Amino acid sequence: MKQLLSLFTVTCALLCTSASAQEFTNEQLNQVNTLRTNAMQSDLSWQILSSLTTEIGPRLPGTENDKLAVAWAQKQFKSLGFDKVWVEPATFPNWRRYHESASITLPSHQPLHITALGNSVSTPKAGLKGEVILFETFEELVAAPENSLNGKIAFINYRMNRDIDGNGYGPAVKARNKGAVEAAKKGAVGYIMRSVSTGHHRFAHTGGSHYDERVTKIPTAAVANPDADQLERLISMGHTVNIDMNIQTEDLGEGTSYNVIGEITGSETPEQYVLIGGHLDSWDLGTGALDDGAGVALTMAAAKLIKDVKRPKRSVRVVLFAAEELGLWGAKAYFKANEKSLTNIVAAAESDFGAGQVYSFESNVHAQSLPIVRAIAQELAPLNITYIGKNEAHGGPDLIPFKQAGSAPVFGLDQNGTDYFDYHHTADDTLDKVDPEKLRQNTAAYAIFAFMAADAKNTIKAK
Amino acid sequence: MKQLLSLFTVTCALLCTSASAQEFTNEQLNQVNTLRTNAMQSDLSWQILSSLTTEIGPRLPGTENDKLAVAWAQKQFKSLGFDKVWVEPATFPNWRRYHESASITLPSHQPLHITALGNSVSTPKAGLKGEVILFETFEELVAAPENSLNGKIAFINYRMNRDIDGNGYGPAVKARNKGAVEAAKKGAVGYIMRSVSTGHHRFAHTGGSHYDERVTKIPTAAVANPDADQLERLISMGHTVNIDMNIQTEDLGEGTSYNVIGEITGSETPEQYVLIGGHLDSWDLGTGALDDGAGVALTMAAAKLIKDVKRPKRSVRVVLFAAEELGLWGAKAYFKANEKSLTNIVAAAESDFGAGQVYSFESNVHAQSLPIVRAIAQELAPLNITYIGKNEAHGGPDLIPFKQAGSAPVFGLDQNGTDYFDYHHTADDTLDKVDPEKLRQNTAAYAIFAFMAADAKNTIKAK
Repeated sequence: MKQLLSLFTVTCALLCTSASAQEFTNEQLNQVNTLRTNAMQSDLSWQILSSLTTEIGPRLPGTENDKLAVAWAQKQFKSLGFDKVWVEPATFPNWRRYHESASITLPSHQPLHITALGNSVSTPKAGLKGEVILFETFEELVAAPENSLNGKIAFINYRMNRDIDGNGYGPAVKARNKGAVEAAKKGAVGYIMRSVSTGHHRFAHTGGSHYDERVTKIPTAAVANPDADQLERLISMGHTVNIDMNIQTEDLGEGTSYNVIGEITGSETPEQYVLIGGHLDSWDLGTGALDDGAGVALTMAAAKLIKDVKRPKRSVRVVLFAAEELGLWGAKAYFKANEKSLTNIVAAAESDFGAGQVYSFESNVHAQSLPIVRAIAQELAPLNITYIGKNEAHGGPDLIPFKQAGSAPVFGLDQNGTDYFDYHHTADDTLDKVDPEKLRQNTAAYAIFAFMAADAKNTIKAK
Repeated sequence: MKQLLSLFTVTCALLCTSASAQEFTNEQLNQVNTLRTNAMQSDLSWQILSSLTTEIGPRLPGTENDKLAVAWAQKQFKSLGFDKVWVEPATFPNWRRYHESASITLPSHQPLHITALGNSVSTPKAGLKGEVILFETFEELVAAPENSLNGKIAFINYRMNRDIDGNGYGPAVKARNKGAVEAAKKGAVGYIMRSVSTGHHRFAHTGGSHYDERVTKIPTAAVANPDADQLERLISMGHTVNIDMNIQTEDLGEGTSYNVIGEITGSETPEQYVLIGGHLDSWDLGTGALDDGAGVALTMAAAKLIKDVKRPKRSVRVVLFAAEELGLWGAKAYFKANEKSLTNIVAAAESDFGAGQVYSFESNVHAQSLPIVRAIAQELAPLNITYIGKNEAHGGPDLIPFKQAGSAPVFGLDQNGTDYFDYHHTADDTLDKVDPEKLRQNTAAYAIFAFMAADAKNTIKAK
């Protein structure tokens, strides 16, 4: 594999130079070099991330901390010298977690580490008791006979696979999205699942879940992996396992938060812009360092570093989306509010997969624009980023609406997420999990990508 | 270092063979080989550990689970075919944890992960609020002026060092043992400390703490390392940091539990015995897999494996000590109850440092007995265990009373504890943290040590 990569690098050095030369002047390429050097020596993204996760901490949409984060982001943008700073409202289902606890009560009393899934209803005040019925997969639960779970607590024990690109997430997240609905259909009074997680520490991983208005809403929670192991072993040893769970949450109706937007205004066609960003909100358990403080910090820093080298022809817009965790509400609001000008987006990429090393770069653009993509790839290569020629990039969760509408050329700066799901949506998502050196590399990658897309001779076009 | 070890191995192979031949017959050495092979192929210690940590779980002295564990241990000993099984009472200060929670309230609201230290008094029902005053070390707190902490919450931020042999524990544990007393002397209303921990996950590490009857007892807790980082950063950023903590505990007076003892009776001088064991109790947060389910399981399994090969001349006694975590209460009770016959102990070793690979073997015996020690060391060498000639072994926490009284030849089968304090006294001390292969190696080491000490021609003597 390494040899193949070397071969690619050599081949590209021969073939790609002309592409770069056509799209970018030597002066521009020198500016890119300066940008790369500056970014790799800068602690700016770390300082921003440290401030956000330390001085504010968790940022569940609709909470006081969410408001603090919106104010913080505007202040940061202004103090970093962004040309324009503004907010745009986004509404979302305003949900709160107040209490969660659980224990095994049979065959012996033991604490059970759980966390309510987002959107979960409460148990009765005194809690909910029931026998645990284990299913290995979501499909097994779906196949259970009607009424077979009457009065029981259904438990899906599916183990997520560990992958560099998070490929294991999709198959695992089914049980989180729809498990409670399927369990309730069979008569269950509660639903628990092995966390959507690759970790082996005793943290339960929260995350969004959905109800079906036609089906009874039952409390729904994830258990930490060691606790899932414990339930599995007890059952395999032949024990009847009863648990007691107490979840107190509240549905506060519709809430409002804000996308916070900062722009470095372009020198030639300022209405056209490169969109980079992350989401400002986080789950309430950790301090949202990996998810998604890192994305916020490194894209803010990248734009500031660009401005310090040269104002590009087109604008660079950093969008910090609201309420991503509850269902991409900020992204949907941005899409709607800016519907008429979305074709102004010349390139878009969201950083929302932690702070691991960026290892590959991919695009989703019109074929005419591939020479620019290749020129950018060439400048990312010194950061040990490989170019993927497939041209089918996704661009990050908040860019899903844009990609679905076909209204923006999206890019992937793919991070190594091998350990991302050890921490994702847990109390353990804290600043110490971020490697400052890798954060610098991410910042440099975003700075180079955004600068080149914004300053290219030709405008990148959507497919 | 590796070369030195190889040199040692070669030298020992030349010099030590004669020692072995003098102390053990070829038949005995063949039995040792069989024992080693059997142990390295056996899952018995894993099965015992899985049963204890899964079917019972946490085992805080005086709780219902502690009683279950005492009954479980007797049943296990009997079903493993031990010749004698009995219990001996031990009393201890019966303490319970009911609730613990904390949050940062200034400069923003954030959960703070804490755990009450063992023996902590409660806060008022509504909790305790105060400004956090940081000290880097225990000594800094001791040096603070009188009344300088009036109404404040003292915080010692000392970081424990990571070591293979747990050497960092002693310097760190001062703050746990006596921090609350020193803080109260200066007027503090509460005391928190960075966990005695090498981990970077968000678990607070509990552990024993002490009050001074002449000093006001204030609530005392450990915070998880990422939370200690957060407090440290907030303070270094110039913020006044207020926290709110709520700890509800109870002192239930004197409790009673039991040392559980199983014996494989010797064939020639049964009154003489090798003592191996661990402690049956655990803290209430995890399931006590590393601390000290592993020690319990591997010494039970070792004795059973010995009996399956050959009943040795002297007895092998497995002692599962009660209430170690609250202050070696089971060990003290055993020492007192067996005071007149302690000279019958021909060798003693406790496994209470997790389940890492045993990497060295050391003794603390009369010089006359060193040939036997060397012979044992020679048989441990194939398990990658190095012999340390120093003859100053400690033998494990529960053997402290024995060693202090000079009444037993104690041995160390030293485990690699590099990551032990990542898990020690946390909710994360669960079965999945134990490596089955390393547990087998530990079991083999204890089986060989105990068999040879019990079956040697000459009796090992204390210094």
